[in-house]
Amino acid sequence: MEVDKKEETASDSSEQVVNPWEVSAKDGGKIDYDKLIDQFGCQRLDESLIDRVHRLTSRQPHVFLRRGVFFAHRDFNEVLDEYERGDKFYLYTGRGPSSEALHLGHLIPFMFTKYLQEAFKVPLVIQLTDDEKCMWKNLSVEESQRLARENAKDIIACGFDVTKTFIFSDFDYVGGAFYKNMVKVAKCVTLNKAMGIFGFSGEDHIGKLSFPPVQAVPSFPSSFPHLFPGNDKLRCLIPCAIDQDPYFRMTRDVAPRLGYSKPALIESSFFPALQAKNGKMSASDPNSAIYVTDTAKDIKNKINRYAFSGGQDSIEKHREIGANLEVDIPVKYLSFFLEDDTELEHIKKEYGEGRMLTGEVKKRLTEVLTEMVERHRMARAAVTDEMVDAFMAVRPLPTMFE
Amino acid sequence: MEVDKKEETASDSSEQVVNPWEVSAKDGGKIDYDKLIDQFGCQRLDESLIDRVHRLTSRQPHVFLRRGVFFAHRDFNEVLDEYERGDKFYLYTGRGPSSEALHLGHLIPFMFTKYLQEAFKVPLVIQLTDDEKCMWKNLSVEESQRLARENAKDIIACGFDVTKTFIFSDFDYVGGAFYKNMVKVAKCVTLNKAMGIFGFSGEDHIGKLSFPPVQAVPSFPSSFPHLFPGNDKLRCLIPCAIDQDPYFRMTRDVAPRLGYSKPALIESSFFPALQAKNGKMSASDPNSAIYVTDTAKDIKNKINRYAFSGGQDSIEKHREIGANLEVDIPVKYLSFFLEDDTELEHIKKEYGEGRMLTGEVKKRLTEVLTEMVERHRMARAAVTDEMVDAFMAVRPLPTMFE
Repeated sequence: MEVDKKEETASDSSEQVVNPWEVSAKDGGKIDYDKLIDQFGCQRLDESLIDRVHRLTSRQPHVFLRRGVFFAHRDFNEVLDEYERGDKFYLYTGRGPSSEALHLGHLIPFMFTKYLQEAFKVPLVIQLTDDEKCMWKNLSVEESQRLARENAKDIIACGFDVTKTFIFSDFDYVGGAFYKNMVKVAKCVTLNKAMGIFGFSGEDHIGKLSFPPVQAVPSFPSSFPHLFPGNDKLRCLIPCAIDQDPYFRMTRDVAPRLGYSKPALIESSFFPALQAKNGKMSASDPNSAIYVTDTAKDIKNKINRYAFSGGQDSIEKHREIGANLEVDIPVKYLSFFLEDDTELEHIKKEYGEGRMLTGEVKKRLTEVLTEMVERHRMARAAVTDEMVDAFMAVRPLPTMFE
Repeated sequence: MEVDKKEETASDSSEQVVNPWEVSAKDGGKIDYDKLIDQFGCQRLDESLIDRVHRLTSRQPHVFLRRGVFFAHRDFNEVLDEYERGDKFYLYTGRGPSSEALHLGHLIPFMFTKYLQEAFKVPLVIQLTDDEKCMWKNLSVEESQRLARENAKDIIACGFDVTKTFIFSDFDYVGGAFYKNMVKVAKCVTLNKAMGIFGFSGEDHIGKLSFPPVQAVPSFPSSFPHLFPGNDKLRCLIPCAIDQDPYFRMTRDVAPRLGYSKPALIESSFFPALQAKNGKMSASDPNSAIYVTDTAKDIKNKINRYAFSGGQDSIEKHREIGANLEVDIPVKYLSFFLEDDTELEHIKKEYGEGRMLTGEVKKRLTEVLTEMVERHRMARAAVTDEMVDAFMAVRPLPTMFE
């Protein structure tokens, strides 16, 4: 049985820190994901589980599964057990709308969630935490709501099925059954515990203390009476980046006390910055990230100028010892977004043995990302206000399990 | 200019403690209301202000004003200034529905609020904090909601005008504009400050930390877009017992930072227990209070058995030195509920000088309370579910200022 390790604090700066507001590796190095699994008490997503997904969905598992982008989980095996017995589940993911434009790292959970929705034929709720961003980023309510709606367009552009997907903003949706569950959760979490899990201090405002239940309760089907009436035992599966784990450790700890099922999780590593700095791609440094609004020229320039290369200093040396693939960002990015396994292996071999040069790999990455961003741009341009309204309408989803 | 004194803590047991969860006097004595005015930084409600109410409303001020039951205020003078210039205000009061039956102490703010509504011809919002009671008293959501609805019947029985009154339960109403204001308030209050104002500790759950904004935001007209659309500057006047002052000190502190008007307050002393113990009548000891559900026999028995008497031990001694009116509960209760000033003065004189005996005063009190409770019982019996629905419907109040 899994043990949920709790009350790790975020204070010791010589250790790696991973929580919803800070991701930093030990001594400026790389995030140690194995250690994170130990710290958090989650489980490694191993080959046998991926094979099982393959078998149950009768389709090749997503690149992000095959290549270990989603690398950890909590109770995903149980969700598959239940699915195999004919019990469906629902998906829950979300986004804090703090910026106008999403970068590639932001798309990862949505690309993967779309795959899960299609492969398992299950409904999905997407929470836009405009209240959180209003509180943390000191945005006005109106600006947070505007960003939520703009971000909803990017999310819809990922290709979600409107007949199976409910997108909601907290400012719009908090209330009723959702608020009742917030109160039920809040009753079960002491201030000491919240400060331990999230690293809050006395100088933080009480809005921050009030927020964890808001992110917790979409894990419970009773928070959505228009979607899951009388279906209070429906299991929830949450695809997210592992920095969100503290919220759901808290949620899983509380769930049994409310008579609710613990949500299951499937958790990703972080998408690295172009400069390969420790931690995750950040929206605050525009040159650290490729945005879905970048032009082909932006993309080319950013990759050529900023993408950290594992190639050698001189062509002679490179031909001799090859690229260090461990630290090479173009290869890392291709492993996220180049779907063709054979081509990726070919590049890694040729580049790693010095026959391919950094410039060639960057050129291929530029093509892949330009095409992806262009596809997203067109899809987003096609998203109308009426479509946003349709996804965000509080309504039943009559064909959500078909 | 008034100074809002803040961050009084509730920890020093040798001092009097007055906060929403605890009322206890220093060394088990009486609450020192003068000191409380100093501690809290509110103002005494003096004769000149009462005279002004008399003049502006063209009716005799309520017994609770004439006899100092409502004894303190914040900015009530400003509300009257604005009223005199033709600017109306709205009233906000509330109740935490923790018990089935209300006692007489619970009725005081509602009796007074009804008078204010009639005298000033203004709209009124009444908050039923079922979420608070669910969190503090460990009631289920359903039981808290049931109690809220039961209590609403008692409140309606006080005679409020349905065309000017909106009663809401937090579990029903939190959301939308109300939730947005909750977030705005929460952003302005640090954890340290909340712990200082309310005396919370690390062992308290985060639901308690989340609640103060819920009680704060009915002070702002924008929390009720169905009532006050485009009327964001409408002033709010809150009649309440002074133990609720910490909530509104916080609210007043925050209001200017949100561009909102500070709510004004008019605050009452506590209705004493029959045994005249320090503090306020408590719902937890049934013999300390007279309930609106008590029979005539209950009332008579409780008054005769438990009402603390300031009369002397023997008739001889009583005839000689008279009753100590300062500590006498029957006289105290009569000063709340016997409307006839002349009769009250007569009783106080006769009793205080030993010509009237405790038994006679208790008999008169029994008559007054029995009549009052009987009138309430009949009024409550006439409150139908349809009436509750009508008061609690989210709707405009088109004639609220007429």
